[in-house]
Amino acid sequence: MPEVRELALRAREASRVLAGTSSATRDQALLAMAAAMLERADLILASNLLDMQAAREAGTPGPLLDRLMLDEGRIAGIAAAIVALAREADPIGEVVSGHRMPNGIWLTQVRVPLGVVAMIYEARPNVTADAAALTVKTANAVILRGGSIALRSCMAITEVLADAIQTVGLPRDAIQYISSTDRAATDELMSLHGLIDVLIPRGGAGLINTVVANSKVPVIETGVGNCHVYVHAGADVSMAVPIVTNSKCQRPGVCNAAESLLVDEAIAAEALPPIVRALADAGVELVGDARAVALGGGFVAAATEDDWGTEYLDLKMSIKVVPGLDEAIAHINRYGTRHSEAIVTGDYEAAKRFVDEVDAAAVYVNASTRFTDGGEFGLGAEIGISTQKLHARGPMGLVALTSTKFIGMGSGQVRA
Amino acid sequence: MPEVRELALRAREASRVLAGTSSATRDQALLAMAAAMLERADLILASNLLDMQAAREAGTPGPLLDRLMLDEGRIAGIAAAIVALAREADPIGEVVSGHRMPNGIWLTQVRVPLGVVAMIYEARPNVTADAAALTVKTANAVILRGGSIALRSCMAITEVLADAIQTVGLPRDAIQYISSTDRAATDELMSLHGLIDVLIPRGGAGLINTVVANSKVPVIETGVGNCHVYVHAGADVSMAVPIVTNSKCQRPGVCNAAESLLVDEAIAAEALPPIVRALADAGVELVGDARAVALGGGFVAAATEDDWGTEYLDLKMSIKVVPGLDEAIAHINRYGTRHSEAIVTGDYEAAKRFVDEVDAAAVYVNASTRFTDGGEFGLGAEIGISTQKLHARGPMGLVALTSTKFIGMGSGQVRA
Repeated sequence: MPEVRELALRAREASRVLAGTSSATRDQALLAMAAAMLERADLILASNLLDMQAAREAGTPGPLLDRLMLDEGRIAGIAAAIVALAREADPIGEVVSGHRMPNGIWLTQVRVPLGVVAMIYEARPNVTADAAALTVKTANAVILRGGSIALRSCMAITEVLADAIQTVGLPRDAIQYISSTDRAATDELMSLHGLIDVLIPRGGAGLINTVVANSKVPVIETGVGNCHVYVHAGADVSMAVPIVTNSKCQRPGVCNAAESLLVDEAIAAEALPPIVRALADAGVELVGDARAVALGGGFVAAATEDDWGTEYLDLKMSIKVVPGLDEAIAHINRYGTRHSEAIVTGDYEAAKRFVDEVDAAAVYVNASTRFTDGGEFGLGAEIGISTQKLHARGPMGLVALTSTKFIGMGSGQVRA
Repeated sequence: MPEVRELALRAREASRVLAGTSSATRDQALLAMAAAMLERADLILASNLLDMQAAREAGTPGPLLDRLMLDEGRIAGIAAAIVALAREADPIGEVVSGHRMPNGIWLTQVRVPLGVVAMIYEARPNVTADAAALTVKTANAVILRGGSIALRSCMAITEVLADAIQTVGLPRDAIQYISSTDRAATDELMSLHGLIDVLIPRGGAGLINTVVANSKVPVIETGVGNCHVYVHAGADVSMAVPIVTNSKCQRPGVCNAAESLLVDEAIAAEALPPIVRALADAGVELVGDARAVALGGGFVAAATEDDWGTEYLDLKMSIKVVPGLDEAIAHINRYGTRHSEAIVTGDYEAAKRFVDEVDAAAVYVNASTRFTDGGEFGLGAEIGISTQKLHARGPMGLVALTSTKFIGMGSGQVRA
């Protein structure tokens, strides 16, 4: 796919222009983008209608259709988020560290853009606008590739936004979309090491695993969350019930929703019946090990080994009765995806060991797993939630789209 | 290679133990490692002698033999560096950020180890000890794989160091070496996404490109440096001569040595003859474009297109006469490897544009490229010099071997 390489070369040129722009210009571009989303909503909605018709004819399931669908309210929401982003502080140009070297060179480490960011995603056309806005804010160029189901919507949004940034003097090539739905285009994108600085897949585990396995471009993995709530022997059951139900039910389709419940055997007879009842009342399908089935009052079916590793993203939860803290931590470190993990306990030592020993981006004591979120954490606009350990871990704010550069100002120094 | 997977599983277990150790224990382990290097030098030197004999018989060239060779002085140097590392501050456990969320959850972001670090390198057995010490310091487990030419030396050092950490109660499995010289072992290592947290190749461009192209484990690229010195029209020639010669000659075999010289046409007739003379006096082989050849007084042969992209790592340099700043910046951004780049100028605007527009880990005004170094930058022990933009850029100190974890301490909070 030479056209993908060509597009990346143009994005790289555009990224050099963006790197030289001021925060004020980029914030102006964001305001122009937000205004254009509203002014040209008809074009976007007409394209979305065609995507929706084709998707319905193809028998696309309801939840996916909902992700694909745009209306005036959703477009207004996208525009409002872009306006809010324009008001956030610009991380580019921050002096991260610095000192005068013993030889007199002034050394400063300065925050700079990554350069060219690529994003591969699935059905949500709003990701097109989110990603374009976040990258313009951080002076990066972006190459976008959404699912073919959303092609017309994504291309319309890209056209509207690229036109908008041009009105304030930024290059159109800073926001580009891969129009080919051929798999070879993705393969080419993943091969462009040296031209693309980072590739961020946003979507299900299948997409993310494919990108990790095949990309030569550095990847930031996001958003696969097989999260647990562990009800320790020292838990207050009246606190455990709302934490488990909130973690599971408040928004079951997202990555920080809990998928699995661990309960200490010492408290299982007391804690499991009210928790199971609350979950069943909320319409959650429950599977569990033999002891959870026995205590589940008919609401818990038998789990298989596969259940412990499954991210349902739905109103379904697995339950395991464990002998104690050691087994709970070992289970989570074995089956978890290092996203968000919670313990409910009144015991100090158990709380301390849990936060020390569980290997995850976010660990909680006596709080819902649902708090792992850039907005909740006060990070501002969120690019995604990283489940890897390099570069960024957990909710990623604008800083995750930056790198740094050392600048040494000398007066003729050479190394001895 | 199921044995590589097995070894990685053991390293992961060991990494969990290390993550729970105190700085004091890990520094004790480092002192034990340093002492063991000296006490068991005989074992290491005997193994090195066998590697050296085999390498000589195989006709290994001199510079490679020099990298392979260990003697008592070099072992003492390795031990001293480990002792110095024990005295450095521990980055693990640092609270990076934190605040009380509006709902009352105390949120802290804490520095934690990466987990399991893998390093693939070539002939230098000292990398075995360096890497083991840096990872013990940062509470990571390490899996090492050196060149087969250094196999006996590396395995002897690994045995000595793994024994040493055991004496202070750390698991031997925290320092492991892949003894198979089969290529399949490297392939397996690169496939262990989820078991290994980062893979750091240290060596030539061939090794690094192979790892980047094939690894599913996140990679930190290090050390390929096609660095330039640009003598601007506004340069002080008496400053340019020592900066160019130092950048090229002070240690030509390392990544921050300059490989290419750019000279403004306006100053070329004045600046090139003394620079060429100084380089030729230092034994540097010179190639250049037609104008450099013409001004080179017989010392400059004709360059080919390949020369502009070549990292010689030797007493050789390419020279190009450029029309001005724009072309110099464009040349560097096209052919450079984003490592270290220098301008010599007395002109403020040229200096500012150069540091703003050249895309590299380190950019200098009126100073040698050779300063890009963890020790020179005051970062303490250096893991390598990253030429990528994600996670770490430029000289990497201990912090590059860490990640962070968010900890939320609640009292029953759920998300509304």
